[in-house]
Amino acid sequence: MKKILLIILDGVGDRPSTSLNNRTPLQAAYRPNMNYLAKRGLTGVVHPISAGVAAGSDTSHLSLLGYNPKEVYTGRGPFEAIGLGMKASGGDIAFRANFATIDDEGTVVDRRAGRNSYGTEKLAKELSITIDDVKFFVKEGVEHRAALLMRGEDLSPDVSDSDPHVTGEHPRKIVPLSDNGTKTAEVLNKYLEEAFRILRESNVNSEREAKGISPANALLLRGAGVVPKLQPFEERYGMKGACVAGIPLINGIASLCGLDVHTYEKGTGTLHSDFFGKTKLAVSLLKKYDFVLMNIKAPDIAGHDRDPVAKKEAIERIDKAFSQLEPITKTTLVAITGDHSTPCSVGEHSGDSVPIVFTTEGIRKDATCAFDEISCSNGLLRITSNDVMQYLLALSDRAEKYGA
Amino acid sequence: MKKILLIILDGVGDRPSTSLNNRTPLQAAYRPNMNYLAKRGLTGVVHPISAGVAAGSDTSHLSLLGYNPKEVYTGRGPFEAIGLGMKASGGDIAFRANFATIDDEGTVVDRRAGRNSYGTEKLAKELSITIDDVKFFVKEGVEHRAALLMRGEDLSPDVSDSDPHVTGEHPRKIVPLSDNGTKTAEVLNKYLEEAFRILRESNVNSEREAKGISPANALLLRGAGVVPKLQPFEERYGMKGACVAGIPLINGIASLCGLDVHTYEKGTGTLHSDFFGKTKLAVSLLKKYDFVLMNIKAPDIAGHDRDPVAKKEAIERIDKAFSQLEPITKTTLVAITGDHSTPCSVGEHSGDSVPIVFTTEGIRKDATCAFDEISCSNGLLRITSNDVMQYLLALSDRAEKYGA
Repeated sequence: MKKILLIILDGVGDRPSTSLNNRTPLQAAYRPNMNYLAKRGLTGVVHPISAGVAAGSDTSHLSLLGYNPKEVYTGRGPFEAIGLGMKASGGDIAFRANFATIDDEGTVVDRRAGRNSYGTEKLAKELSITIDDVKFFVKEGVEHRAALLMRGEDLSPDVSDSDPHVTGEHPRKIVPLSDNGTKTAEVLNKYLEEAFRILRESNVNSEREAKGISPANALLLRGAGVVPKLQPFEERYGMKGACVAGIPLINGIASLCGLDVHTYEKGTGTLHSDFFGKTKLAVSLLKKYDFVLMNIKAPDIAGHDRDPVAKKEAIERIDKAFSQLEPITKTTLVAITGDHSTPCSVGEHSGDSVPIVFTTEGIRKDATCAFDEISCSNGLLRITSNDVMQYLLALSDRAEKYGA
Repeated sequence: MKKILLIILDGVGDRPSTSLNNRTPLQAAYRPNMNYLAKRGLTGVVHPISAGVAAGSDTSHLSLLGYNPKEVYTGRGPFEAIGLGMKASGGDIAFRANFATIDDEGTVVDRRAGRNSYGTEKLAKELSITIDDVKFFVKEGVEHRAALLMRGEDLSPDVSDSDPHVTGEHPRKIVPLSDNGTKTAEVLNKYLEEAFRILRESNVNSEREAKGISPANALLLRGAGVVPKLQPFEERYGMKGACVAGIPLINGIASLCGLDVHTYEKGTGTLHSDFFGKTKLAVSLLKKYDFVLMNIKAPDIAGHDRDPVAKKEAIERIDKAFSQLEPITKTTLVAITGDHSTPCSVGEHSGDSVPIVFTTEGIRKDATCAFDEISCSNGLLRITSNDVMQYLLALSDRAEKYGA
């Protein structure tokens, strides 16, 4: 049995760019270490979730870890909250939230409170209170955005939005969408009444008005979902697992799955992250853990920025850090893939596939000699992200026999 | 419409071996006939069951024949019994069994009766009795192993093990795990009381004690399952089918599916089987049958023995026998694949894929020129074992139109 290092290059898949001579950033990058692993490994194509799906990082990471997002992903609220760094537990109910502006009659005049985050951190703290036996946690995000997490007994995501989704209307009463949602709707309406009072009376809003910023005097909720209770990774696979990632969303998902989250201060989740130090940490964790997941966010950022040259350069710096991988392939199964494509020509996640390579001593190599979208399409595998975990178990000699 | 010959090279898939110049046994073998079929055929990769699953021969053969093991495979008992050559019928309940040693107080002191099979054939016959309206059949296996088959009305596999799974305890009373299991548990407990009396009084055990062998004075049961009632092959596919295999497990599964089982005395299921004569029999059966399944066990044996050279040599001798295949490809669709990989470096079934080739006159050939794990990965197909039967129907012009 071997150890497993699964490296996710976030949004690494791309399409050809004219500024890269009609090559993808991966094809254009000088990447001797990735290519070494491809030459000595088993390669192929991964469809995130399934063929043509433009996967999110949340659904794709769940799927890569072997959890079926179709079973455990009930709405964006929970993963928005996790992405903001909130400590979510299985069973919590979460919403995406907007700070909004209402007039004296209570009519929504700006669903986004001027898209201005002034004071929202303080407001979020003030809005984190307990009503009856239910704890409410609010966390601010970018601009007017926030998330709300509810924790208590007998809560359900079967409730409507309070967000009217248009201006000129009042925020809506929350109504239960099934019998399960009765208590949740009741306590939420109580909470929102109290929240509006807190917002009305907060110093933050007098400060905002003094500065000429629309007041954040309402909180609009949408996208209720329940934080899934996932079978712990160790129980599911018989392996102790750890995660190294630079962004809260991935750390949150890893934590929900029962992976130990290790943070590396200079692994910032940006284009300028210290890839070498982060890879070093991931490799060193293999002494203590059977399985390590490392997410590198930089390629996705360059994709969203529509900057193929920055993406290529980030991949080249990542490749330098991967000089640390060859020495561990004797005892470790190393796999590199992406969670989805973020083509620079699109600036968003797309349904294009991503390449994958598995390398370890004694593996059944195929004829592929380079790690990129096209070279790996000559490899042996055509799989979905949900097959990756089973394949990792198989190639590290951990798969249990099905039958006799 | 063409006839179909499906050849399963048991455990043929492998990984590179240093003793074969880093080639797999298939790659290293001189195999002009297999390569001829690949050059003139359609090739690809098969994931047994699904990607990364380390399939058993039982689950994989069921799947290759188009039956979904997730629906029909309820436990190892039935296939253990079938593997020992017991004539199982759909609806029978079967257990894996151990001959064990208990002391005078009835405490289990050795769950495996010294791992010694002395006299167990005779004990098995003595233990094959009828209680109330239920017939019990016991068949001895290797060392202390055996299987128990129950046949009667209203039986169910929803019962607990009698095997305590540890020493120092008494064998457990069988208890029903649902209302369905009530009668089964009752009659089993009666049977076990009688069985222990038979074992206590058997001459075999005085002989064992005289020879210094732990007595086989208890029978421990585990892994209850029901022998599945499978839709007969001819009804399902409109083809009369036959099977040629050297081992009871495959013959038993074929029989359950309604294939006629033909045995060839020199087709022994060993490394030294007469592959030529067996292939000749399979080919001759195509006169009488539409479909013939031939299983060749030798590659799996060499894989379990961790002997890549023996595996390569067995494949070379098998290939010689396959000189008989080219002449029949005018009227017959010939397919060769494996039920799973048994890499010599692992010594067990692994989750690696297996190659497949379909050849017949007029087939859509792909660019593959050799039959092995890597060459076939350049072929057209990436399928699972459960797709193979449908593909056989399609390429032999037997697939019914779905729609208009």
